[in-house]
Amino acid sequence: VTRVLVTGATGFVGRAAVAALGLQGHEVHGTARVTAGDVSVDAWHRADLLDPAGVDRLVQESACTHLLHLAWTAEQPTYSSDPANLAWARATCALVDAFAAAGGRRVVAAGTCAQYSWDPDVIGAEGFVSEAVTPRRPTSLYGRAKQATTDLLEAWSAETGLSFATALLFVPYGPFDRPERLVPSVTRSLLAGETAEVRSGNNVHDFLHVEDCGAALAALLDSDVTGPVNVGSGQGTSVADVASTLGRIVGREDLLRIAPASGGGEIRLVARTTRLNEEVGFQPFRGLEAGLEATVDWLRERLA
Amino acid sequence: VTRVLVTGATGFVGRAAVAALGLQGHEVHGTARVTAGDVSVDAWHRADLLDPAGVDRLVQESACTHLLHLAWTAEQPTYSSDPANLAWARATCALVDAFAAAGGRRVVAAGTCAQYSWDPDVIGAEGFVSEAVTPRRPTSLYGRAKQATTDLLEAWSAETGLSFATALLFVPYGPFDRPERLVPSVTRSLLAGETAEVRSGNNVHDFLHVEDCGAALAALLDSDVTGPVNVGSGQGTSVADVASTLGRIVGREDLLRIAPASGGGEIRLVARTTRLNEEVGFQPFRGLEAGLEATVDWLRERLA
Repeated sequence: VTRVLVTGATGFVGRAAVAALGLQGHEVHGTARVTAGDVSVDAWHRADLLDPAGVDRLVQESACTHLLHLAWTAEQPTYSSDPANLAWARATCALVDAFAAAGGRRVVAAGTCAQYSWDPDVIGAEGFVSEAVTPRRPTSLYGRAKQATTDLLEAWSAETGLSFATALLFVPYGPFDRPERLVPSVTRSLLAGETAEVRSGNNVHDFLHVEDCGAALAALLDSDVTGPVNVGSGQGTSVADVASTLGRIVGREDLLRIAPASGGGEIRLVARTTRLNEEVGFQPFRGLEAGLEATVDWLRERLA
Repeated sequence: VTRVLVTGATGFVGRAAVAALGLQGHEVHGTARVTAGDVSVDAWHRADLLDPAGVDRLVQESACTHLLHLAWTAEQPTYSSDPANLAWARATCALVDAFAAAGGRRVVAAGTCAQYSWDPDVIGAEGFVSEAVTPRRPTSLYGRAKQATTDLLEAWSAETGLSFATALLFVPYGPFDRPERLVPSVTRSLLAGETAEVRSGNNVHDFLHVEDCGAALAALLDSDVTGPVNVGSGQGTSVADVASTLGRIVGREDLLRIAPASGGGEIRLVARTTRLNEEVGFQPFRGLEAGLEATVDWLRERLA
């Protein structure tokens, strides 16, 4: 049995990761600033990671060998320019440093597809990005803070012997997603019989059901793969296609108002998932249509 | 009068920066883990920046509006893979965060030419690198830690209103340089009448006398230029040419044994200094020959 500490365990991705780690038979220790609530873990440690004393206490108390670090500022829609990104970069370095000093052996930290350049002149018109090849030149404070933190910790771990991987998360969707985001906001409008305004319909992203995302993180933590690893489906889907699929599922395509990206700049950003599929040995369980159907069912139940 | 805090003020570059800031009429506050010794400042604050409580006390006590942050691990020859690079990245973020919170307005932090890619396929055969164009893809832990720290702080400052610049230092030489480095080690051998083994003679770097480096940092701090700024001479010189010049100055060229870089890979890394020269308005005072002559004189006096 591996003792695994999960930070941000009450979050959108954290819940799914906790569930996947539990299914694998690990002893799961969760932490967040709040109580565990309905998140099912073997042990709970309430802690504020922005408090240095809290970090040290958490590491000592939990005494885990494996760490899945998901906590970060996620205020919508300001997270990409939130000054708290610096505090979270600092907290992440402090946590990993303390964890390794206390005998921790393996760490997976959440990165983001926003660490890649999104410039078609850099990544090509198809928008496929791969860990070893594509430059990571983020533009937002969020992307730059994640890139700074994970690249520093990758370099440091290579010198100190800590086993460290960065999970570059593409676009997870599913239960407990923030209401402002694409899938829940469109679905809520459609279920309420209201017009759903969809912006940037031509942008293409890599969508992954959050249960697959959690299972991928659990598989990555269980492996000895180090460095950056894309966590996505490997499939590009336009925002318009996601919205249209939701429209068909709900039976209200008539309510969709889909507009292209303003300014004309189209984003295409799709994960090459060779590392995840072949080195980690993980394949997603759900296709996009099935994943969206399950999400609509979950939201319908919640709203009922 | 501007109140300026200089960290690493007893270091090789720090001494020169303190002198330049003093000449400009600033109120110079110095800090290091040791006493000021022969470094002439208006106020001295002995502090360990790796101690969070020490950082907060230093910022409160010194109450400066301007910060020139030069302190970092510099153990030779291990600094490029020293695990302490993480601690210094953390300390730098903590210092800048605390400094801004206490009302600090302008920060210049030392970066390094090691933040640039050194790959000729990336930067071109001539090796000229410029801030806006050349990718910063460092390979060493040192380069990656400096890049992570300064890029994060640049991004954060752009959102919070702190005026922040990174001084990307090329190769300073001169008084108080570490004895293991090129100019002092070759000069000491020649002055002692011993054979001077010079490796990587074909590598081309951008050498800048440390008094010019200190003056450039003072000028940059006095300006409102933000983001990365190359601090170099703009001239590339091979290691062999530096050694030969030292041989001529000492009159013992016969003692030089110059070998090319092992493995055949030649490094060429030269600063484009348009930002420093035109935006900051700084030009170096000394040419390389005059700078090396002054350095030989200083070393001769020290060794006498």
